[in-house]
Amino acid sequence: MIIIGELINGTREAVRRAIVARDEAAIAELAIRQTEAGANYLDCNVGTVGEAEVEQMAWLVGVVSAAVDAPVCIDTASPDAMRVGLAAWQGTEPPICNSVTLERGRLDVFLPIIAGRHARVVALLMTDEGVPQGVEARVDAARRLVEVLEGAGVARDDILIDPIVTPLSVDADGARVTMDAIAEIMSALPGCHTVCGVSNVSYGLPARGLLNRVFLCQAIRSGLDAAIIDPLDRQLMADIYAAEALAGRDEWCAKYLQAYRSGVL
Amino acid sequence: MIIIGELINGTREAVRRAIVARDEAAIAELAIRQTEAGANYLDCNVGTVGEAEVEQMAWLVGVVSAAVDAPVCIDTASPDAMRVGLAAWQGTEPPICNSVTLERGRLDVFLPIIAGRHARVVALLMTDEGVPQGVEARVDAARRLVEVLEGAGVARDDILIDPIVTPLSVDADGARVTMDAIAEIMSALPGCHTVCGVSNVSYGLPARGLLNRVFLCQAIRSGLDAAIIDPLDRQLMADIYAAEALAGRDEWCAKYLQAYRSGVL
Repeated sequence: MIIIGELINGTREAVRRAIVARDEAAIAELAIRQTEAGANYLDCNVGTVGEAEVEQMAWLVGVVSAAVDAPVCIDTASPDAMRVGLAAWQGTEPPICNSVTLERGRLDVFLPIIAGRHARVVALLMTDEGVPQGVEARVDAARRLVEVLEGAGVARDDILIDPIVTPLSVDADGARVTMDAIAEIMSALPGCHTVCGVSNVSYGLPARGLLNRVFLCQAIRSGLDAAIIDPLDRQLMADIYAAEALAGRDEWCAKYLQAYRSGVL
Repeated sequence: MIIIGELINGTREAVRRAIVARDEAAIAELAIRQTEAGANYLDCNVGTVGEAEVEQMAWLVGVVSAAVDAPVCIDTASPDAMRVGLAAWQGTEPPICNSVTLERGRLDVFLPIIAGRHARVVALLMTDEGVPQGVEARVDAARRLVEVLEGAGVARDDILIDPIVTPLSVDADGARVTMDAIAEIMSALPGCHTVCGVSNVSYGLPARGLLNRVFLCQAIRSGLDAAIIDPLDRQLMADIYAAEALAGRDEWCAKYLQAYRSGVL
């Protein structure tokens, strides 16, 4: 499972303050704690837009880069912020660009930024017409986006398809459609990965942590192999270890037993 | 989701003592608490064999019958205990016979007991050669057992197929095979139900409750629509409400929201 730690996000008040104050120690601590908890990548989202975003992203990626070996996941809709974020990354492992979509204006601008460099890409299944409705439309969008990305030289192993999670409160069938889409995509596009941010599923409903955890367990059963989550949430991480073992992805339950011995379960 | 409460089981020490002492109040309380917590059926297993089993089963089913409206699930490998259990049930809803298998000696003896009366049946996928290995063998066994049961006059809606959960500690791929079999069976034999006892999955591993909960959530995603569980385990019940909502089986999240308002989540 590819774990992308979500905590370095400027929409969280403490992180916003750290970014504005250029508090390197606070950001470094958040980076270190997440990697120690099992994060393989660290999402970097400055939580603002415009010129400030570009400048802040360069600083933020530089600080994370100096603090840990885990690559960043540069989370922005701004081509300029993506460009400076990629340039600021000092590590040896390829970072993740989060994200490209099938929206015409976005794809045309982001492809040249990604092309010719070794980066992984979150491929968000959003089109000019919005989120494709139903499983088949979602799989069709995935095929088209993967074709475009492969055409630009991105390897399948570097593509993380985000099928988009809609709130269950808005569409009672939405989570099922997303999970069916994950299963279909993993079968139709072998070599690709699938990734989700899970918290959107519980928007507008009570006991959100419960829904988020159960959704992730079910999505792993459907084939999901990457997630943007809070790795400091021990219960969520315990569920991931169990879900992976049950899905037949943990030979001899070795990772599960290791997590138990480390006190995570 | 059909919830079969598992607590009236003589292999549990307190229940064994209540059965031996003919303590009606203790059994009645366990029946009432489980139905109040959401059990639709109450498993009755006296936890012993031989003549004592037959006599105890008649008494146990009678006590449960007098205490609650929820039907019993008569859990025995003894044809005599099954016969007296069915005779002792006083309720209006059909009880469940737990279980028939494809084992020649067992099937021949149990079919006449079930035939001609309205009872539901747990159809355990066990053959004379043991547990069928792999998904296809499991689905094939389900087809054969359903054919035999339908031939004996049992309606599909009254058949609960138990695909057998093997311990993850023995077979790291076993839970995945069971869940894939559930998905195939629900698709290949429309109208039938699938049921599992979940606790076997975690045998021999630490943090068993975690594995049991996550397995149940994933199995519901695969189509499981009945389970033999402890309904007094609030975390497990909360997970079931979330899992059903996420699997698209709870329109407008009505049951989930009701469970939240009742303090279950």
